[in-house]
Amino acid sequence: MMRPTLEFWYDFSSTYSYLAAQRIESLAEEAGVGVVFRPFLLGPIFATQGLTAAPFEQFPLKGQYMWRDLEREAATLGLPFCRPVPFPQSSVLAARIALVGLEPGWTPAFTRAVFTAQFGRGRNIGESSVLADILAGMDLDSEAVIAGAQGDANKLRLRRMVEEAQARGIFGAPAFVAEDRELFWGNDRLERALDWVTGQARRSELPV
Amino acid sequence: MMRPTLEFWYDFSSTYSYLAAQRIESLAEEAGVGVVFRPFLLGPIFATQGLTAAPFEQFPLKGQYMWRDLEREAATLGLPFCRPVPFPQSSVLAARIALVGLEPGWTPAFTRAVFTAQFGRGRNIGESSVLADILAGMDLDSEAVIAGAQGDANKLRLRRMVEEAQARGIFGAPAFVAEDRELFWGNDRLERALDWVTGQARRSELPV
Repeated sequence: MMRPTLEFWYDFSSTYSYLAAQRIESLAEEAGVGVVFRPFLLGPIFATQGLTAAPFEQFPLKGQYMWRDLEREAATLGLPFCRPVPFPQSSVLAARIALVGLEPGWTPAFTRAVFTAQFGRGRNIGESSVLADILAGMDLDSEAVIAGAQGDANKLRLRRMVEEAQARGIFGAPAFVAEDRELFWGNDRLERALDWVTGQARRSELPV
Repeated sequence: MMRPTLEFWYDFSSTYSYLAAQRIESLAEEAGVGVVFRPFLLGPIFATQGLTAAPFEQFPLKGQYMWRDLEREAATLGLPFCRPVPFPQSSVLAARIALVGLEPGWTPAFTRAVFTAQFGRGRNIGESSVLADILAGMDLDSEAVIAGAQGDANKLRLRRMVEEAQARGIFGAPAFVAEDRELFWGNDRLERALDWVTGQARRSELPV
């Protein structure tokens, strides 16, 4: 039997994607599930819905709550937390770099490092020097990687990824997609998504 | 030592409040926590944020996802689920009636019954006959209760409840408030809110 997989869709500027990125690999490993990393951009998707900013930016009460909730959740999970300034940060270059790492296999480590830099240490991942430091710390040739990430073919690849996210009905991050069609939204649904792909969910009670 | 309590803020038209209402009493009992029922209305709070509809109504993708997620969550919890038509329904009369039941103590049972009628059986709780049936099923004098609920004093009481919700920074439902100040939003945070009031949460790592 083939090992089941779960797609992990994330935007590097998404706060709850930070929590999911730090949890998903160990939880998936325990469940015997492979994780398919899918870095994308939420901005173009918000735009098609007529949103010019994330919901928590548009509604101050929701935004204020989100930071407190993140702080509490990070403490519960034992993760460092530091509210980044500025926020939100540009996640385009980080997403492009993450795509370059898919074939050589360093995307998971890069993803964790970028999220920790931003939400654990308050660094600005919109600055290419911050991303170059992370790549160098992973023993990669940061200059070459960034040049490849900024190439036209890779830029197009990220646009295709956004289109694929839209085709899957993704409207927020993190999102998890099982079997190309079953969508789960938010860090709080990671366990449910894993249960779904391993057959632990009560699907029999649901309409197809 | 006094038994700790948790405030449960809910709007009868809120989908995830249905799930919370069916879970909160048994979970709180296990944790040794008392539940303070706080029926309120989300509409006036959305209005002060410039929203004319709930977020899931404004964004079709989010709305479509919400119904699928609810269906899955209800199956996981073993709760009946039936998408109500029309939706959203008017929750004003149900909220007024729930307030009347606070002193005599039947609000928890009434709350569960109203949510089950709407989201478990697809009935329209905006119709007073549906609510009258529920009250009668609880051996209450439905005519007298509804008359009291529609009295000026009780209408004012509901407006005060909405003001109190706003003062607590509530922007969605269900919401849980611990110790008059710590806010938790969403059915997914019920366990965290209970951990908070029983002192199981890692508060020491959080700024006050």
